[in-house]
Amino acid sequence: MMEGIFPPVLQVSSLGLILDLIGTYVFGLSGAVVAVRRRLDLFGIMVLAVAAALAGGMIRDMALGSTPPAALRDSRYLVAAMLAGATGFFFHHGIERVSKPVMVLDALGLGLFAITGAGKALLYGLSPIPAVMLGVLTATGGGAVRDLLVAEIPRVLREEVYAMAALVGAAIYVAGGEWGWPGFETALIGIAATVILRIVSVWRGWSAPRAPGSDSA
Amino acid sequence: MMEGIFPPVLQVSSLGLILDLIGTYVFGLSGAVVAVRRRLDLFGIMVLAVAAALAGGMIRDMALGSTPPAALRDSRYLVAAMLAGATGFFFHHGIERVSKPVMVLDALGLGLFAITGAGKALLYGLSPIPAVMLGVLTATGGGAVRDLLVAEIPRVLREEVYAMAALVGAAIYVAGGEWGWPGFETALIGIAATVILRIVSVWRGWSAPRAPGSDSA
Amino acid sequence: MMEGIFPPVLQVSSLGLILDLIGTYVFGLSGAVVAVRRRLDLFGIMVLAVAAALAGGMIRDMALGSTPPAALRDSRYLVAAMLAGATGFFFHHGIERVSKPVMVLDALGLGLFAITGAGKALLYGLSPIPAVMLGVLTATGGGAVRDLLVAEIPRVLREEVYAMAALVGAAIYVAGGEWGWPGFETALIGIAATVILRIVSVWRGWSAPRAPGSDSA
Repeated sequence: MMEGIFPPVLQVSSLGLILDLIGTYVFGLSGAVVAVRRRLDLFGIMVLAVAAALAGGMIRDMALGSTPPAALRDSRYLVAAMLAGATGFFFHHGIERVSKPVMVLDALGLGLFAITGAGKALLYGLSPIPAVMLGVLTATGGGAVRDLLVAEIPRVLREEVYAMAALVGAAIYVAGGEWGWPGFETALIGIAATVILRIVSVWRGWSAPRAPGSDSA
Repeated sequence: MMEGIFPPVLQVSSLGLILDLIGTYVFGLSGAVVAVRRRLDLFGIMVLAVAAALAGGMIRDMALGSTPPAALRDSRYLVAAMLAGATGFFFHHGIERVSKPVMVLDALGLGLFAITGAGKALLYGLSPIPAVMLGVLTATGGGAVRDLLVAEIPRVLREEVYAMAALVGAAIYVAGGEWGWPGFETALIGIAATVILRIVSVWRGWSAPRAPGSDSA
Repeated sequence: MMEGIFPPVLQVSSLGLILDLIGTYVFGLSGAVVAVRRRLDLFGIMVLAVAAALAGGMIRDMALGSTPPAALRDSRYLVAAMLAGATGFFFHHGIERVSKPVMVLDALGLGLFAITGAGKALLYGLSPIPAVMLGVLTATGGGAVRDLLVAEIPRVLREEVYAMAALVGAAIYVAGGEWGWPGFETALIGIAATVILRIVSVWRGWSAPRAPGSDSA
């Protein structure tokens, strides 16, 4: 079923693989930064980096019946996640200097995984709407596991434009595929849409409406 | 593998599908009401409604190897979950007027998913005891994910007769199948047993025994 | 697909099955003890015992595409988990007399599941590094679900040498398989390595380094 440590991953296009590995690294870095802030030790940092990096893709692959998941079949995912943990361990001061580093890393991972999740779902024959939904689940899953492990309410619930940003990116990518747009450019536009929407929403403090009358509840 | 947005779902009987969609809507509504109480915004309400509505069935399908899960293969599940989110957003005042709305919705979803989970497990060749167990897991999974996402200890642990109510309903349905009872009537009896057992246990404050001497621990 | 209540489980060697059932019982006991301490009632104790006992193996099997998971296909897993719950309910005073009972049970379960997880991954054709990783996931999954359900930060993050202990045990077992060591002895050595490493690390208060400068962050 597999040979060597770096087996060919046939089910995913090489573009999908590259975006997936970048997303893995970026989400891993967000997990490492959260772990450093929580004063976890080196092992705790590695665990949270790996969990944040791999959980979204593993949920995606298990839902698609693509088992074992790419994260287990292809060691590059684990290497990317552990590199992210090590980067967070050694360079967290540099990362912290960026304003709101977890938010920015998270936004980038969100965009990357929304596109790779939706793309892999299309490859497995899902129709457009469920493919967009699996993109959102892939994108929000890793961050949700990260936040749950440190007993925080996940960002996907707390923050206004989060699942929505992933949804827009995945929808652009899926719609582009339907309309025959070139894959690489569409992927970049989808990722950019998610990242920009997410960062601008935090920067401008956008908020969605509350349920009518819920403030007085 | 699938065509159109509303593909035929062959693995599930039409009775199972109808009960499953009602359970999806009802659990989605419980998620929406929890989200409104937590003052989440429209997006947060939608996320919690979708998570509560779809998590139990997705766990069930992934455990059975029925991938992609029905919730991703058949868009009606997502539509039911989002309708539940929208209902909660606009009509939460009306819902709140019912006494203990989350508990009642939860009890109904519990009964519906216990039966559909156990029934699908039997269709996939599981023997009776594991089928009952998967029914319980399906029924309690969505509510557990809902409660974990808002950082609450899940109802399945906090409340006395919860998993037990799902177990009784699933066991009635599975036993009925073994003994050749008619499927529709047995399903209704199983659902009613779960709902009544659950609601009466809350109303009468039934509690199971604590471990001997644990109060002084 | 399966016959009778105790179907033959072909995918797992009988050694793997025995270790898996012992691990199931031991993790179940850790769940029951946590539940008794939280003053949960009999049902809550059973739920937490079953969740702690079966979650790790179910995640392993779902990741390997070995569905339905052994925990659902073979009723002995459920029986072991419920026996653990009953043991915790009736004998928790005896168990509590052991110093740090949850930690010791957890260490033993960690070692057992690290080996069975890695071994089953090899049987399913995973290469060594991902097999070790799945061993760690199997070993840490049940305890993480147990701790999340009672709203605690999982041991795998809080405690210094935890995932690392599982990693060492799984790596010994996988390396032994690569080098042609006899399976039973290698499994015992791997389990012992995990348990000793974990218990000694707690006893001596070993800690891994924090990120440089994170104390002043």
